[in-house]
Amino acid sequence: MVARVRRLAVFVLSTFTCAASLAAGADRPPLLFGFSAAESATEQALEHRFDAALNPSDLDGWLKNMASGANHVGAPHNKANAELTRDLFQKWGWDAKIEEFYPLYPTLKSHTLELVEPTKFVAALKEPPVEGDATSTRTDGMGPYNVYGADGDVTAELVYVNYGMPDDYKDLARRGIDVKGKIAIARYGVGWRGLKPKLAQMHGAVGCLIYSDPQQDGYGQGDVWPKGGWRPKDGVQRGSVADMPVYPGDPLTPGVGATKDAKRLSIAEAKTILKIPVIPISYADAQPLLAALTGPVAPPHWRGALPITYHLGPGNAKVHMAVNSDWSQKPLYDVIAKIPGAQFPDEWVIRGNHRDGWVFGAEDPLSGHVDMMAEGKAIGQLLKSGWKPKRTLVYASWDGEEPGLLGSTEWAEAHAKELQSKAVLYLNSDGNDRGFLSAGGSHSLQHLVNDVSSGVTDPQTGVSTQARLRAKLQVDGFEKGASDDDKKAAKVAAAGGDLNIDALGSGSDFTPFLQHLGITTLQVGYTGESETEGVYHSNYDSYDHYVRNGDPGFVYGIAEAQTVGHLILRMANADILPMRFGAFAETVAGYVGELHELADGKREKAVALGKLLDEGAFKLAADPKRPVLAPEREPEVPHFNLAPLDNAVDSLKKSTQAYDDAYNKLMAGQAKLTPAQLKELNGDLREMEAALTDPRGLPGRDWFKHLVYAPGLYTGYGVKTLPGVREAIEEKHWDEANQYSVMTAAALMAYCDRLDKATNVLLARH
Amino acid sequence: MVARVRRLAVFVLSTFTCAASLAAGADRPPLLFGFSAAESATEQALEHRFDAALNPSDLDGWLKNMASGANHVGAPHNKANAELTRDLFQKWGWDAKIEEFYPLYPTLKSHTLELVEPTKFVAALKEPPVEGDATSTRTDGMGPYNVYGADGDVTAELVYVNYGMPDDYKDLARRGIDVKGKIAIARYGVGWRGLKPKLAQMHGAVGCLIYSDPQQDGYGQGDVWPKGGWRPKDGVQRGSVADMPVYPGDPLTPGVGATKDAKRLSIAEAKTILKIPVIPISYADAQPLLAALTGPVAPPHWRGALPITYHLGPGNAKVHMAVNSDWSQKPLYDVIAKIPGAQFPDEWVIRGNHRDGWVFGAEDPLSGHVDMMAEGKAIGQLLKSGWKPKRTLVYASWDGEEPGLLGSTEWAEAHAKELQSKAVLYLNSDGNDRGFLSAGGSHSLQHLVNDVSSGVTDPQTGVSTQARLRAKLQVDGFEKGASDDDKKAAKVAAAGGDLNIDALGSGSDFTPFLQHLGITTLQVGYTGESETEGVYHSNYDSYDHYVRNGDPGFVYGIAEAQTVGHLILRMANADILPMRFGAFAETVAGYVGELHELADGKREKAVALGKLLDEGAFKLAADPKRPVLAPEREPEVPHFNLAPLDNAVDSLKKSTQAYDDAYNKLMAGQAKLTPAQLKELNGDLREMEAALTDPRGLPGRDWFKHLVYAPGLYTGYGVKTLPGVREAIEEKHWDEANQYSVMTAAALMAYCDRLDKATNVLLARH
Repeated sequence: MVARVRRLAVFVLSTFTCAASLAAGADRPPLLFGFSAAESATEQALEHRFDAALNPSDLDGWLKNMASGANHVGAPHNKANAELTRDLFQKWGWDAKIEEFYPLYPTLKSHTLELVEPTKFVAALKEPPVEGDATSTRTDGMGPYNVYGADGDVTAELVYVNYGMPDDYKDLARRGIDVKGKIAIARYGVGWRGLKPKLAQMHGAVGCLIYSDPQQDGYGQGDVWPKGGWRPKDGVQRGSVADMPVYPGDPLTPGVGATKDAKRLSIAEAKTILKIPVIPISYADAQPLLAALTGPVAPPHWRGALPITYHLGPGNAKVHMAVNSDWSQKPLYDVIAKIPGAQFPDEWVIRGNHRDGWVFGAEDPLSGHVDMMAEGKAIGQLLKSGWKPKRTLVYASWDGEEPGLLGSTEWAEAHAKELQSKAVLYLNSDGNDRGFLSAGGSHSLQHLVNDVSSGVTDPQTGVSTQARLRAKLQVDGFEKGASDDDKKAAKVAAAGGDLNIDALGSGSDFTPFLQHLGITTLQVGYTGESETEGVYHSNYDSYDHYVRNGDPGFVYGIAEAQTVGHLILRMANADILPMRFGAFAETVAGYVGELHELADGKREKAVALGKLLDEGAFKLAADPKRPVLAPEREPEVPHFNLAPLDNAVDSLKKSTQAYDDAYNKLMAGQAKLTPAQLKELNGDLREMEAALTDPRGLPGRDWFKHLVYAPGLYTGYGVKTLPGVREAIEEKHWDEANQYSVMTAAALMAYCDRLDKATNVLLARH
Repeated sequence: MVARVRRLAVFVLSTFTCAASLAAGADRPPLLFGFSAAESATEQALEHRFDAALNPSDLDGWLKNMASGANHVGAPHNKANAELTRDLFQKWGWDAKIEEFYPLYPTLKSHTLELVEPTKFVAALKEPPVEGDATSTRTDGMGPYNVYGADGDVTAELVYVNYGMPDDYKDLARRGIDVKGKIAIARYGVGWRGLKPKLAQMHGAVGCLIYSDPQQDGYGQGDVWPKGGWRPKDGVQRGSVADMPVYPGDPLTPGVGATKDAKRLSIAEAKTILKIPVIPISYADAQPLLAALTGPVAPPHWRGALPITYHLGPGNAKVHMAVNSDWSQKPLYDVIAKIPGAQFPDEWVIRGNHRDGWVFGAEDPLSGHVDMMAEGKAIGQLLKSGWKPKRTLVYASWDGEEPGLLGSTEWAEAHAKELQSKAVLYLNSDGNDRGFLSAGGSHSLQHLVNDVSSGVTDPQTGVSTQARLRAKLQVDGFEKGASDDDKKAAKVAAAGGDLNIDALGSGSDFTPFLQHLGITTLQVGYTGESETEGVYHSNYDSYDHYVRNGDPGFVYGIAEAQTVGHLILRMANADILPMRFGAFAETVAGYVGELHELADGKREKAVALGKLLDEGAFKLAADPKRPVLAPEREPEVPHFNLAPLDNAVDSLKKSTQAYDDAYNKLMAGQAKLTPAQLKELNGDLREMEAALTDPRGLPGRDWFKHLVYAPGLYTGYGVKTLPGVREAIEEKHWDEANQYSVMTAAALMAYCDRLDKATNVLLARH
């Protein structure tokens, strides 16, 4: 699993960056953000030794070994990989051990899918061996299934629902079609997988099929594996369909670690388990089903790349599907490796990547996991030379991410209190490929990410990975067909300041840390030039595929280990945590601006719609041969009280400016704080992110506590910023919008208060 | 042939319209634009009698008969149709005769296309019979070919060039690919057919194939014929590839009628004949060729709906193609039918539709031709009841439109002087289908079109066809995915004033009248809800297809005959030609605004590109595995002298306002002009459009004299407004842009002068 962030987005006005950026590669060592001149020299020397210890052939060897067998939860080879990881970290000088949890984890016993009318066709539901892909002949992987769908045996008419997103159901309704009592077939893409069956279920479907359309995911993208890297006709995307936007982790133990004796819900009580069966299928299996459909021709943007006319159904095609699973608990093996901090042992810098894969998982997740191992080995060498981190390092190899962030969530829940009082950073990665830097997370670390990435060399061009990304953003904004967002990002990139990092939704193991515990978080990887999406969650996500199509020579694996390693080392070694806050204020100001636009846009749209309905315009405009009904009338949209947020933004700008000024002044003066001041200041900084959480959590999903970043209830992996307010407006919960405006503003004001406190510590020095 | 105008576009602020629009269907007869209250009642009664004489079964019978045999130039059945048309018009009381011309018209003797490497595949180049399509079994039609391509026999590597438009060649160049010495394969769509081989030839290709991709033109649009109406796998789009943006008509007699003894160019001298062979093919024939290509994967927007990965080539696929034609002259049979005007016999209202088709031509052109016949019959009945038009009516059934507007162009050239001194309108139609009003032409007639269409009932909804179009524009602008243009048009439609008519490019027989002779012109039809595009220029454009997919029941045929008939009758009967000019001023103001934006945009883009090139951004951003080179540096874009145009727009606004005010005042007063004043005024009005022409014509194509509307040199059918200036800026002919700015402004000032003269006649009355 991983929601790949395609690129860094926009922004920031800082003028301090340029110096650091330009200095990279210059004669005298650059001044590293967070370090004095003398410290910078030491830190850079350390990083050079770290870099020298990274070896692509290590990555190659580990990947080949770890991806040589099936790695799903409970697979023997996955357990062996856990033991290997533990043993290696121990060998490298870390205190490493395996921590076990016991979540509910249904595994497939059998499933079947067939067209029973108008002709008979039995779906293969199998991924056969492929020439040149050594592990594709293995049989220890699980068949293609969607974990946490229900068991069931249903026969019903088929309806094509496009991506199966909320707007698609509106389009269907306007064509007089519903899925009540029917089986919905959705294509992968646009929204998160798990929303497709969830929405089908909400609309009354009795079953759901999800297929990979070759337009997005097959020959429409490029040559298919093994000629190229894209999805072959029999390739299937497995994946979780647990309702993770409500809560991730073990469905039976929300909020607490799934230890042996934890109190558990019954399966019936678990809100995140679906009630209808779901089967993921290949485009070879989907084509006969879709070709059999009658009913209206699908709207233009619903049509994929199969050589058929896409119809919506229902009618003609009747389908039988059945799923039967083993609903027992399975053990999880998280590997946790630590090095105690020499100076601030109670300040933890945590870094994780999952280890379980849907089958072999060469790219997802092992390509990121081996980078993390390389960091662990290199840090071990530094240790052996006598160096010690000032802060405690915690490296984690998570199990069970694929079914629902199980390993990370259960560990985070089990250790919540300690983590909230100690963690200064959780840094996550997942699969890693050839391409461009992609970073997201807490905007207080935006400048650090820019500072670090301007010092990491891109293996294909020789400039820094930050400079390459800057060039890419500018070119993307210039090329024909650039979107407004592309143009905006290009303008910011051209301005020369920091590049923006993305806000995080979900899709990997950062979620429990950031959104449940309120820990400062980053997600960092390289992506954008590989063809590994073509084998995502399939039998063909193999070593052979990865070394040809993912990151030949593991050069971006080295770049990733350098980028992450430098981030970790700087967070571990800087006296004052290297954070800058102006970007956060600017970013939140942008989000609040979006809320105003959202509300105004919805209000105007409702009025315009009402006018068209009053005039009967939809009826007049419709083609009687292909009737499209009028949309439903929208309720009037009130004006919301966004003033608390506007005021909070004003305060944020002042408080962040004050902190950044005081911090810069202190660093420019090469002054030092007393140990007590340092402790107090770092304690304040550690707690900044938590200020943005509220114990009441988000509406209807109180596991999610963060009021600035959350996965969308109807976007899944995709982020919703200021989610309490934004989703309330989107979902027409008018009162809730006003209520969360106040709550979110209060969180932002608490953030200001903590930051002002930190600023006072800095100013006390002067 | 017909460049279907998908919808009326934007605009107009008039408040006079509303009265007329709302009055349609009200109790007392509406005040018709151009007529006093008393005249309105008479005119409306006349139109009611006209309407009552229209009979769908006439249309059905004529279409079935006329589409029962092949109708290309020189086909016996096409000649028989000419005779039928002449005879019927004579029977209806018209003075009708056939006028012959003798253009060069190559016909196919043989052609062949085969893949010779890496495997052998021989293209069928045939359209087999289809169940339920009676004429599809006939063999009197010509095989699929592109007329005015060269003969030739070449074997070369294949390169896929997307739509084969200028930007596509830039995309190819950035991938290091050219077509020199190769055969280009382009898909139909985006730009006019003839530009594809022309541009391939300009880039050094030795041959060109044009195929119908199922994405735009086949199963990607809907069920294919005979299940639905869309293009079946063997369907081929024939069509002309003469270089008509240089001049249409007989390639050997530009500017003069191709009479028997006209002076002719040699074939080698004819600028509009290609030098390379071209073959149009089906998607069944195209798929093996495209599937054989290697080379880079085509960019995303280049990929169609065939179940393959689209590659650019060259490499792997080698193709042999040969074309052999009979290069003789063939006779054209234009039918010209007249009714002399009782009051202004030297003021001609001309109306035409072509009669020749690529095979049977049921939709294109006969569906429009039978509507024109229904008008002719109905007018004949009015005549027999004693009515006579004040102005002379001229109805024309054109031959040879498909190969290059031959019949209309030769006739217009042969009678140029008389037409320029007599024609007050040329009104054209072509194929007609179920759907929405689509009108284009001289903006001085925009209000008349709105006035007439607000009085024609839409057969599917019962509101006026203008009201239905207004609803459609509003809905299109509201729906998800609406373009900025859609939104703009919706806003104008919502405002309630006149809907804008389109500017005309080319693609049907209006071109010689509007753009060569400077005659006030309209093109009117219904379109947008049929599936006839799926059989465009193929063996399947049949009666059987049309009555199922074109206009079942011929109800839009009746709407078309009413709309056109009312326009003709009002132009024929109004004492003062019913023209209003404000819309023209507003429209030209918009075009001049676009020129400013075009120049500024190009200037900024050249600067931005230069900066990115200087920084090496394209090199950094490119994927080394799929390299995309930097675009070529653009020359600096100077500031152009558009001031003459800005000044002309100011004058236009004043002059048009003055005329419209004076005209409205006169009509409101129910005052009458003397016969001499009327003659003078109508003479001025008749000459308005000609003021917009310049004898020097457009750069490099002096046959095109109009300085406001022209087909684009690189868009073909697509219009370029203010073409002398716009294309000079686009093509980087900086001096020419300034030169044509002055020339075009002078034409607009001449327009003002003539209009001021007309205004003085009106004012003299008061």
